[in-house]
Amino acid sequence: MNKQPLPKSLRTIDLNKVRIQDSYWSPYVTLVKDTVIPYQWDALNDRVADAEPSHAIKNFRISAGLQDGEFHGFVFQDTDLYKWLEAVGYSLASYPDPDLEAIADEAIELIAAAQQEDGYINTYYTVKEPGNRLTNLTECHEMYTIGHMIEAAVAYASSTGKTALLEVARKAADFIDRHFGPGGDQIQGYDGHQEIEMALIKLYEYTGEERYLNLSYYLINERGQKPSFFLEEWNRRGGISHWSPGNPQKTAPDFSYFQAHKPVREQEVAVGHAVRAVYMYTAMAELAIYKDDAELLAACKRLWNNIVRKQLYINGSIGSTHQGEAFTFDYDLPNETNYSETCASIGLIFFARRMLQAEPNSEYADIMERALYNTVTAGIASDGKHYFYVNPMEVWPAASEGNPDRRHVKSVRQKWYGCACCPPNVARLLSSLGQYIYTTRQNTIYTHLYIGNEAQLELEDTKALITMDSRLPWHGQVSLNISQLEGSGHFTLALRIPSWTDSSTITVNGSPVQPEIHDGYAHIKHDWSVGDVLSVDFSLSARRVYANPLVRANAGKVALQRGPLLYCLEEADNGAVLSSLSLPHDSEIREVQGQWHPELIVLEADGYRTGNGEAQEAPLYSTSASERIPQKITAVPYTLWGNRKPGEMQIWVRE
Amino acid sequence: MNKQPLPKSLRTIDLNKVRIQDSYWSPYVTLVKDTVIPYQWDALNDRVADAEPSHAIKNFRISAGLQDGEFHGFVFQDTDLYKWLEAVGYSLASYPDPDLEAIADEAIELIAAAQQEDGYINTYYTVKEPGNRLTNLTECHEMYTIGHMIEAAVAYASSTGKTALLEVARKAADFIDRHFGPGGDQIQGYDGHQEIEMALIKLYEYTGEERYLNLSYYLINERGQKPSFFLEEWNRRGGISHWSPGNPQKTAPDFSYFQAHKPVREQEVAVGHAVRAVYMYTAMAELAIYKDDAELLAACKRLWNNIVRKQLYINGSIGSTHQGEAFTFDYDLPNETNYSETCASIGLIFFARRMLQAEPNSEYADIMERALYNTVTAGIASDGKHYFYVNPMEVWPAASEGNPDRRHVKSVRQKWYGCACCPPNVARLLSSLGQYIYTTRQNTIYTHLYIGNEAQLELEDTKALITMDSRLPWHGQVSLNISQLEGSGHFTLALRIPSWTDSSTITVNGSPVQPEIHDGYAHIKHDWSVGDVLSVDFSLSARRVYANPLVRANAGKVALQRGPLLYCLEEADNGAVLSSLSLPHDSEIREVQGQWHPELIVLEADGYRTGNGEAQEAPLYSTSASERIPQKITAVPYTLWGNRKPGEMQIWVRE
Repeated sequence: MNKQPLPKSLRTIDLNKVRIQDSYWSPYVTLVKDTVIPYQWDALNDRVADAEPSHAIKNFRISAGLQDGEFHGFVFQDTDLYKWLEAVGYSLASYPDPDLEAIADEAIELIAAAQQEDGYINTYYTVKEPGNRLTNLTECHEMYTIGHMIEAAVAYASSTGKTALLEVARKAADFIDRHFGPGGDQIQGYDGHQEIEMALIKLYEYTGEERYLNLSYYLINERGQKPSFFLEEWNRRGGISHWSPGNPQKTAPDFSYFQAHKPVREQEVAVGHAVRAVYMYTAMAELAIYKDDAELLAACKRLWNNIVRKQLYINGSIGSTHQGEAFTFDYDLPNETNYSETCASIGLIFFARRMLQAEPNSEYADIMERALYNTVTAGIASDGKHYFYVNPMEVWPAASEGNPDRRHVKSVRQKWYGCACCPPNVARLLSSLGQYIYTTRQNTIYTHLYIGNEAQLELEDTKALITMDSRLPWHGQVSLNISQLEGSGHFTLALRIPSWTDSSTITVNGSPVQPEIHDGYAHIKHDWSVGDVLSVDFSLSARRVYANPLVRANAGKVALQRGPLLYCLEEADNGAVLSSLSLPHDSEIREVQGQWHPELIVLEADGYRTGNGEAQEAPLYSTSASERIPQKITAVPYTLWGNRKPGEMQIWVRE
Repeated sequence: MNKQPLPKSLRTIDLNKVRIQDSYWSPYVTLVKDTVIPYQWDALNDRVADAEPSHAIKNFRISAGLQDGEFHGFVFQDTDLYKWLEAVGYSLASYPDPDLEAIADEAIELIAAAQQEDGYINTYYTVKEPGNRLTNLTECHEMYTIGHMIEAAVAYASSTGKTALLEVARKAADFIDRHFGPGGDQIQGYDGHQEIEMALIKLYEYTGEERYLNLSYYLINERGQKPSFFLEEWNRRGGISHWSPGNPQKTAPDFSYFQAHKPVREQEVAVGHAVRAVYMYTAMAELAIYKDDAELLAACKRLWNNIVRKQLYINGSIGSTHQGEAFTFDYDLPNETNYSETCASIGLIFFARRMLQAEPNSEYADIMERALYNTVTAGIASDGKHYFYVNPMEVWPAASEGNPDRRHVKSVRQKWYGCACCPPNVARLLSSLGQYIYTTRQNTIYTHLYIGNEAQLELEDTKALITMDSRLPWHGQVSLNISQLEGSGHFTLALRIPSWTDSSTITVNGSPVQPEIHDGYAHIKHDWSVGDVLSVDFSLSARRVYANPLVRANAGKVALQRGPLLYCLEEADNGAVLSSLSLPHDSEIREVQGQWHPELIVLEADGYRTGNGEAQEAPLYSTSASERIPQKITAVPYTLWGNRKPGEMQIWVRE
């Protein structure tokens, strides 16, 4: 492995050096290994009863000439297999499994067989439109698809050492490198869905070949330049869209959907398709680091701040509208029609991690934690077999059925989706969780997430095996034990102080310390020895959270949070018509042990219900306000919602 | 005129027997005459600068062979001219105008020239798809379009006595009568957009020819029967839609959009496209009366009750979603994404009027009044040249621009629309307002609306000229003066007691009377003489209105109403971020004289604003609630909103 150093930046830890051991997170990680990966393999092979078929494996078999038939699915259907393989790669790093590896090797053989002589690979174009390669980069995801294959290849090679898929990936990357660039015989273009940019950087990190980094830099820098590549391509296509070929478009689409409306360095606010956006910002942050490009980093910070200060839902999700699965504008965070795609929060976590590499600032980790604990895990059911694509702020099942404006908001997690980007994306994130806990720089270890683990960390003059125990998210006690040491032992542990805690007590071997805090991290510099224990106790109690008054949708409302967990009301506990409930400002929030999930803490408070249950018979409008009746209000962690019986759900409650 | 008697029902008054004289309504009526009708004529001739062109007249000229060119506009573009002509017809009944009549006669000549030999008339099919007549009744509005022409013809003949357009209408109706019916050589079908059914009844009422009534009855009874005509037609078209011909549909549309999912008598709830629905219910009510069809009347009552008790916005508008401009389901009345089309409220008024003919019940008139005073007049600007298609419950201009889910909600009235159904619909309703004030039955005069007027009313043994004076909507005093009498003078005045009044004082010639009240009408039986005055004083004060708790969107909120007028908050009075305002339950509502509209009464109350104006700099989420600052809250009549500077608007306020 020829991983490039990041001289001025923080380094992420290799996945095979970290092992998650955590009472909260290990069940998710093993769920991915034991259930999600096998289940998704069945889905890819169209073996899940009553679910939309994936067609992914079949498309590869047809493309490889192993089977007759027609292509089915979206133009980016291949990525379902690639993301699954990436998750498998990560999982094998922690849990070697020869049977799973054999299945993966077979899938890789199939992928290799589907690759064209010149390195190109895409089952849609190979099977269905062989003459039309690279003619509709705006809409058809060819580089996006290859990008996911490259990410899988790097993950799989990293964990298994096997390079068969990496060879496919290099050939495909070389294909792109030949076809795209400033040369007269090259395309001065880029892909409609960003992804290849991140993937090429991973390929660079793994292979050390700088031309992959430079290709990524080219694609990012070219994006949004004038004359517009997408407009020229649209003209060449005569306005014919892949999505509606029978009806030529009269006007070109708005390229802000693709973040290609202006050069990336000039972009001020997050716009367009949310997943595309955060994938691009992630690549920008990576390039800012590797190319030491201050202007690009400044653009990243601007875009980060815009999201986090003006366009972020409280559960760490983004995308205020279903139409275009997109950002809308500052402070527009409607609760009924939001999109909040699971994949977009995963992309936001990617972006946060790279920003943490660029500079240690706990805000990045706070948001990473918020998205991870709330949206990502909310996207998957406890059984590992049902998924949310959209993560609602509130659910009224009748409206999801009966109002087309809310039809995208599912009230129950689905078995699989025709466009199944989210399930394998959750799998690859959860199986690579170990990469998000720490970064290191010189002789400092930064801890960003408090997820119990054992990690082999390399510093300038020390190698340390650290064992982290964490009682989060339910309780605030975390400890880091120095289990093994090589080298000086003289290093700093920089602990993130989460934004959700009021006070934290830090001890070293039982003695209180008062470390300096920089950018949200408590720096404990020490000559560490084996057996040393750094303990932290973060105060952790239920809190009321209010939205900025410019968020019109949340006026007069309050949300409940406890530690990193956002809470919500469910019909299962509170009865139907959750909108009728209100929580007085001075009502005490009680913490109660819940029964239906391990360690679960439920919040309870004395509130009110408006209306007497005879509303069905009452007139639609009346001059008398309905009576207020005392009612106990019960809130449960948002991430666990929808795991009991179906019904209403609501995050924001009237205060 | 051979108008058919309605033996068991209430009769509407002929328009030429009523003249509006009212300080509130006369300006609307003269606005239509002086501004709207000339302006719309310019629009029909594509002479309004910066507005979407209508193409309507040009299409007729091309169709009549008077001009070369191509058809432009929607498949139902002809109806813009027809609805304009209908409004002209009504207006001429009250305000003879030889110049206007000459313009209308010329337009009628053009229409006659565009009619085909066999009676068929439709400029789209004649110019653009001559071979495809009657092949896509589901989508292409052929009978709908003819229906509007018939309505115009009856209105114009009624007021001017000229029958040129009536001849065109009869030929067209005869064409439909030949082509549709149970016969083997006929089509067992109906139109995707109901309208012809109402129009044929008007033609029957005017001509006395029962086959027009029977044709309407056939179309209504056939609708929704199995096998589905629309499904069969869809199969014949191979799933090709007029709206997207390049992409054949894979599955047939949901015919509930067209209220054709089941026979009309079996329909329980209002579904689908709201305008289609209320036009159909209107025809059903008419047929229930003329055919003495109790089952059909029962269906009308069921559907009425469903709308009024479960699907009606507080301003008397309907249509909870933009998608399909449609009803959604019970109690689903979102404030941000509603449709509330002006035309749908006009259709609801048609329906209410026919239900009033079927049975006197003040609820029908209450809803008619609510829709008329709030939605219909809100649909048109004070200048008569700008219109709302969608009538919002709340407006945030930035969201109308920046969130595609709210793009249909315009924050400013528009000059004209490509699909310009609403402007001429408003014109025809306002110019025929005289038909909505009274009905008569035997020796009873029912007064439904309190709009000042002079009316010649015919009873069983009396003819009376009644002069009504009304100070509504600003004050509660109404008087009816017996100005002339022929016959016995022994009759009953049945006065509607509006739902918005707490008490009403009724006097005859100054002496209090205590009449019996049946179904919301105070019945004053008397031997009337010329000079007698019946006076009513309705108490009229600002009231708080609450929605049923099952309306989730309005939980914890209050609306203000005074008399028939709904009030709203505007940014012009209250500053931006209206969601930050709250109105305490016990805050006194003060009535204040407004300055920017004649007689205007503005409501004021002491309320609060949350947030200190520094919200732009504040974080998106915080554990401290924003401060509450006292602020005067000002509410203005909803119907007048958007007539000052553009900005936010909101009906429902947090209490």
